[in-house]
Amino acid sequence: MSQEQQEQPIVNEVERVAERLGDVVLGEDGKPLSKKALKKLEKEREKERKRKEREAKEEAERLAEIANDFAKNNYGDFAPDGRGKTIKDAGFTTTKWTTVKDLNSSLEGQTVRIYARLQDARATGSSMCFMVLREGTVTVQALVVANDETVSKVMVKFVKNIATESILAIEGKVVKPSEPVKSCSIHDVELHAEKVFVVSRAGPLAFSLEDATRSSAEIEAGGFNKVNLDTRLDNRVIDLRTVTNNAIFRVQSAVCQLFREFLLERNFTEIHSPKLIESASEGGSNVFEVTYFKRKAYLAQSPQLYKQMCIASDFGRVFEIGPVFRAEDSNTHRHLTEFVGLDLEMAFQNDYHEVMYMIYDLFIYIFKNLEQRWAHELQTIRRQYPSEPIRYKEERVVLTFPEAIKFLRDSGVEIDDFEDLSTENERLLGKLVAETRGVDFYMLDKFPSAIRPFYTMPDPEDPRYSNSYDFFIRNEEIMSGAQRIHDADLLTKCIKEKGVNPKDLEHYIDAFRYGCPPHAGGGVGLERVVMLYLGLGNIRRVSLFPRDPKRLFP
Amino acid sequence: MSQEQQEQPIVNEVERVAERLGDVVLGEDGKPLSKKALKKLEKEREKERKRKEREAKEEAERLAEIANDFAKNNYGDFAPDGRGKTIKDAGFTTTKWTTVKDLNSSLEGQTVRIYARLQDARATGSSMCFMVLREGTVTVQALVVANDETVSKVMVKFVKNIATESILAIEGKVVKPSEPVKSCSIHDVELHAEKVFVVSRAGPLAFSLEDATRSSAEIEAGGFNKVNLDTRLDNRVIDLRTVTNNAIFRVQSAVCQLFREFLLERNFTEIHSPKLIESASEGGSNVFEVTYFKRKAYLAQSPQLYKQMCIASDFGRVFEIGPVFRAEDSNTHRHLTEFVGLDLEMAFQNDYHEVMYMIYDLFIYIFKNLEQRWAHELQTIRRQYPSEPIRYKEERVVLTFPEAIKFLRDSGVEIDDFEDLSTENERLLGKLVAETRGVDFYMLDKFPSAIRPFYTMPDPEDPRYSNSYDFFIRNEEIMSGAQRIHDADLLTKCIKEKGVNPKDLEHYIDAFRYGCPPHAGGGVGLERVVMLYLGLGNIRRVSLFPRDPKRLFP
Repeated sequence: MSQEQQEQPIVNEVERVAERLGDVVLGEDGKPLSKKALKKLEKEREKERKRKEREAKEEAERLAEIANDFAKNNYGDFAPDGRGKTIKDAGFTTTKWTTVKDLNSSLEGQTVRIYARLQDARATGSSMCFMVLREGTVTVQALVVANDETVSKVMVKFVKNIATESILAIEGKVVKPSEPVKSCSIHDVELHAEKVFVVSRAGPLAFSLEDATRSSAEIEAGGFNKVNLDTRLDNRVIDLRTVTNNAIFRVQSAVCQLFREFLLERNFTEIHSPKLIESASEGGSNVFEVTYFKRKAYLAQSPQLYKQMCIASDFGRVFEIGPVFRAEDSNTHRHLTEFVGLDLEMAFQNDYHEVMYMIYDLFIYIFKNLEQRWAHELQTIRRQYPSEPIRYKEERVVLTFPEAIKFLRDSGVEIDDFEDLSTENERLLGKLVAETRGVDFYMLDKFPSAIRPFYTMPDPEDPRYSNSYDFFIRNEEIMSGAQRIHDADLLTKCIKEKGVNPKDLEHYIDAFRYGCPPHAGGGVGLERVVMLYLGLGNIRRVSLFPRDPKRLFP
Repeated sequence: MSQEQQEQPIVNEVERVAERLGDVVLGEDGKPLSKKALKKLEKEREKERKRKEREAKEEAERLAEIANDFAKNNYGDFAPDGRGKTIKDAGFTTTKWTTVKDLNSSLEGQTVRIYARLQDARATGSSMCFMVLREGTVTVQALVVANDETVSKVMVKFVKNIATESILAIEGKVVKPSEPVKSCSIHDVELHAEKVFVVSRAGPLAFSLEDATRSSAEIEAGGFNKVNLDTRLDNRVIDLRTVTNNAIFRVQSAVCQLFREFLLERNFTEIHSPKLIESASEGGSNVFEVTYFKRKAYLAQSPQLYKQMCIASDFGRVFEIGPVFRAEDSNTHRHLTEFVGLDLEMAFQNDYHEVMYMIYDLFIYIFKNLEQRWAHELQTIRRQYPSEPIRYKEERVVLTFPEAIKFLRDSGVEIDDFEDLSTENERLLGKLVAETRGVDFYMLDKFPSAIRPFYTMPDPEDPRYSNSYDFFIRNEEIMSGAQRIHDADLLTKCIKEKGVNPKDLEHYIDAFRYGCPPHAGGGVGLERVVMLYLGLGNIRRVSLFPRDPKRLFP
């Protein structure tokens, strides 16, 4: 463990006070110190001096021991700035690096060279030390055993004292163990280390990776420490190292990749709309204000208008993956003040269902490919956070709003024809769909116009309803979309009907004065999709560095 | 042309003043109107009333003419809200839509159905009207010719009066013209329209698309109107419709796609780091301030720290495509206050050149694939903005900083060994490299430590230089990168050497206290790459909705 790093704050503290010692000794408050305080300070300085002396002596002894060691060239610390050993000094006998995941019985007897984290080191007497080495989501066992040629007892001691989570460069022989190594993800081989160098030393950790990787069931059964979410997030650099988190963010990356694969294949163009906007277009209260040179700007709550402008500019089909900002003071499991929006917009030919059905197929594409191409990651995540794969049908499962109301009424719910669905009713509806259709994923079509935003196209045949839809996963809404009004006059009329002054939305309306094709689209929060897909229960788990009303750090 | 939309402002103006007419007539300034002003107002109202009467009469005549027309079911306006004709009323005889780009001689004699913009309509007498129809970057000629069965003279008049840039749904026969149509991008077929419906009417435009699509040479030779950049940007919805702009943003989308293709193939994970940050880490002056509930937040100037935290969290290789904010009051051709950053960071094994060379190969991959897979778009752009393809070699072209200094000195430049390169010297160097090596793309390695940021790793063998690099296209820097210091103690030392208090960067330093592999990376502005690659001269041309100190709209 790096003593220097751990103790640094105390040394600084003493030095800071000591700096102010002169003819008059001043305390932290700027006033002269009392005699008692002065005495205490001197005592602390004396203690500190002695500690340093002791440490220097120990270090000198350690260095002397190493200097006389026959194995001294086979271990040590790499110094990043040239003042110590470099990778050249290590004298590795092989030139190619292997990755931990590639270690297998086909390499038996060969000498390999790897980089890995030290997850655990345990000595058995003074001649042998076991290590668990980790790279990403894979672990392997390694041994250092003292002999007369390459490994000394001094080297074993050196290895034993390396702090957990330090990064090592190791050369060793691939050996078949006498019995399978159960404690590591690689069972059939272990590494007999002949060279061990520390690439980067770890200081003390706020929690152990073992504790952070246990499932609730394991914690309960074994009476283990639970690492709470805030502690994890405060120490996110450590928390993100768990195999589970490593896998979660690989899945998050995969969702973006699949979203784009599907859309680029269908001739969509990727756009990047501005996040700094001139006016708080969609009702000012949930918008963050920015000081923009000598005036104000706002952070975009959605790329909606810009996507639509691209449609009016003949881009035909566009998508965007980018940050979305919501100044909502909501402290729930599913709200963030900054999240990643996956947005798309598309001109259609006959009917907005072309777009709605394409979005359905897009989700199916994502689900299917995740299960196939990211099976290892899903398995890793489900070990710590058990969940069933979501059930879906390629044949589209869709309910209209009136059908949903009837469904709920038949189950005894009192609800008006045009009433919005409460979270409770959404859940019940999801359960009813799951029971009758056997799926956790479906679409709800034709929401009442009154409960959708002003830009939603009314149904031409019954304007009490609109050409709009929501998508649900495991009874929670994950995507909202609609045909948008592409006609400036109709848009003005609908804005007035919602009690808004068209003057306030002039720029928005103007975009549709130069001819615009009929179009529809939708938007979805990346974190929400991943959370619901994996059944993770809290959106902060799927945001790399989450932002909420109380958290802006790290 | 939609008269209603064009005249709306005047009507509003009169009505607004009229609303205030009562016992006392008040003017715009809130004071009673003078007799003279009153008379003027009444005259205006009278004029307005007459105009409305005349228009109503004309409209009634027009409707009567249509009501009696034998072809009346073959044209008209689609109403978006069900109060007029719908797509069903159009009675299209074919059910499938074709795209304009798919019209070719193999379809000769067939009836097709398309959506397209009316780029131009010109009548020849009362019996025939020529149209130029556009979809994306493709144009085709269409005709309506009066006959006794499907097309009447009333219909020809209807078509003639449709405003340019309106969107039409057309059914017609594919016909081989007597001679190739030179004025359209499709030469070998034209369309004989039998049904013409207006899907969305365009109002008056700030400039014509023809004017906006001419090259400088054409403007000069023909004495045409030049549409200046500000006018374009103020009317971006129209400006983005030009075939050139359409192609520019397809190329921009392609650069992102290729960047990701290359990196995902090499096992990178895509990340999304927060844009709202707690403290203005890299020197406060260029950071936008945000009101975050009851405190302050800042907009991230780069994802640097977060990329590095992911490396410290064992992600191994990460990239991000996202907005970057710079509160710099720079009004130049190459600065934006918000741009799209393409960032990557990667743990390496032996040496940072692994990363630097991979970035070189990444650019080559982008250049090569653009020329191959987006050749049509490049050709379209180069028609309006002529430029040569950039010259590059797959064999890596790299210069060290000392070599660059020598190169410049040999050309008569007086420059110190450790002096930063001025823009002028960068240009000269680029020219020298182009002359001697025949390329417009190269790397410059080993910049002096003194002119690079605090987190740059010094060269272990000569700390006056650093493990850092820049990439150049056409003599301008497009990417800056380096090995980063992964050791907390060395980082603290280097921060002090730059005269910064390590306390101010505590959180940054802390990320490296738990073991971090050696790593390097870089960042590049998407708009700058596309601008230099296409030789476009102004970065605003490659930003969808550019933001600079003076522009926040649209």
